[in-house]
Amino acid sequence: MIDTRKLGTYRLNLIGIGTGNPDHVTAQAAKALNAADLILIPRKGESKADLADLRLQILSQVLTRPIPLAEFDYPTRDASGDYETGVNDWHDEIARRWHAAIAPHEPREVALLVWGDPSLYDSTLRIASRLGAETRVIPGLTSIQVLTAAHGVTLNEIGRPVIITTGRQLRDGWPEGAETAVVMLDGQCSFQTLDAERFHIWWGAYVGMKEELLIAGKLFDVGTQIVETRAKARAEHGWIMDIYLLRQVSK
Amino acid sequence: MIDTRKLGTYRLNLIGIGTGNPDHVTAQAAKALNAADLILIPRKGESKADLADLRLQILSQVLTRPIPLAEFDYPTRDASGDYETGVNDWHDEIARRWHAAIAPHEPREVALLVWGDPSLYDSTLRIASRLGAETRVIPGLTSIQVLTAAHGVTLNEIGRPVIITTGRQLRDGWPEGAETAVVMLDGQCSFQTLDAERFHIWWGAYVGMKEELLIAGKLFDVGTQIVETRAKARAEHGWIMDIYLLRQVSK
Ligand SMILES: C[S@@+](CC[C@H](N)C(=O)[O-])C[C@H]1O[C@@H](n2cnc3c(N)ncnc32)[C@H](O)[C@@H]1O
Ligand SMILES: C[S@@+](CC[C@H](N)C(=O)[O-])C[C@H]1O[C@@H](n2cnc3c(N)ncnc32)[C@H](O)[C@@H]1O
Repeated sequence: MIDTRKLGTYRLNLIGIGTGNPDHVTAQAAKALNAADLILIPRKGESKADLADLRLQILSQVLTRPIPLAEFDYPTRDASGDYETGVNDWHDEIARRWHAAIAPHEPREVALLVWGDPSLYDSTLRIASRLGAETRVIPGLTSIQVLTAAHGVTLNEIGRPVIITTGRQLRDGWPEGAETAVVMLDGQCSFQTLDAERFHIWWGAYVGMKEELLIAGKLFDVGTQIVETRAKARAEHGWIMDIYLLRQVSK
Repeated sequence: MIDTRKLGTYRLNLIGIGTGNPDHVTAQAAKALNAADLILIPRKGESKADLADLRLQILSQVLTRPIPLAEFDYPTRDASGDYETGVNDWHDEIARRWHAAIAPHEPREVALLVWGDPSLYDSTLRIASRLGAETRVIPGLTSIQVLTAAHGVTLNEIGRPVIITTGRQLRDGWPEGAETAVVMLDGQCSFQTLDAERFHIWWGAYVGMKEELLIAGKLFDVGTQIVETRAKARAEHGWIMDIYLLRQVSK
């Protein structure tokens, strides 16, 4: 834990910004951004340069007055040892860099733009907890909702449960007893490990962005098309983010 | 299916408005509302009168010009027979009422405000599909995200799955293999059926609203407090909406 007390206290505002459309921003997020006296922002030069641009575009659209930016560079993660230790050390190092970028400004309200919603497969809250500063979360649209909205499909069947999971988990098998699953963080089109006759899929890449791609149908009919579309788009843009909803076909 | 072609075509815009804070509205939702030439709205006089007021408050905050409202009354659901048939008939009847309210106005863009996000435990999409009109969904914040933001807690553990379920489902037992579950639509504090020593709970009622109530802790320590707080709040306001996140305590 970094002791911020010696350096004056500030509040960290973790602000969900949705998944790529500047119009995803809520009125609450816009207000929180405008109430900040410092905005902490990763330096451009990530591989996903489009996302860095997007943050600046959102700021230029939303801010009603100029607010100082504090930039930081993401460290690279040590992938040599144990996964959990690697992640923990990485979060520690990011927290140190945040603090180093923030402290000289002696701010009161620091804002940080978080992709989608800060609660969902995102480490910002875990990193923030290391700073010992008061933390406020402003919710944002998740890629799940942007996906279902784009397809005009419901997440759940009436009164039925839904599981949110990852590509890695899915490769260990379809979740026990599940009818509907949302799969995120999947670099490998892991739906290919399933019995394609048993599922319907709603797939989306770059959801909410101008590059948005959507494919839906019986997994048996569209699985290959998704794999090919994904590979092509990834090659074209240099990066991809995709997500999908799977529903078991009722017998 | 109601044949809307004879009466001219319109597009239905199902607009997620978040869960009770007018500032949950996204820029996209505000634009879609302002682009409508008719807003379909349930007549006041529901038991949850506060929610009817909230819709009007959102409209007054967001609309940049007056837009005609078309009001309709919700029918009462026939709970005598089979559940599924009852729900289906009810949706049919709502669709008929929507259409009757919309048709005389001969609109092009009809907007409908949906609580939270239209994909999540909501029947609006199913009712809309009966109208045979083009339908567009604008995502909104769900009560899940508003809950996790209020508590400053993540939905998932690192890389782990999450199940979204209902009180009724939970009463059938803790979902097989799950570590984290979000429980919605629970009128009975169904967490009481669990082994309280094994869980941590983050509970919220009226999340995002000025009446917001939050309790978090080990289920063993705070379970009774939640049951009592809920009963008291419900009696006071005449209605309640609550939601909670449960996480198994690691052994
Ligand atoms: C690190 S997680 C962050 C999720 C984010 N916090 C949210 O609320 O959606 C990244 C994963 O989210 C999904 N994702 C995020 N943005 C997306 C987008 N615009 N299109 C498709 N998938 C997206 C993908 O599954 C991706 O692997
Ligand atoms: C019919 S569902 C609608 C859910 C909504 N579409 C969403 O996105 O949150 C109603 C359930 O959502 C949850 N809910 C909705 N709004 C809430 C609020 N403001 N506070 C707590 N729970 C809420 C409760 O579990 C409630 O039983």
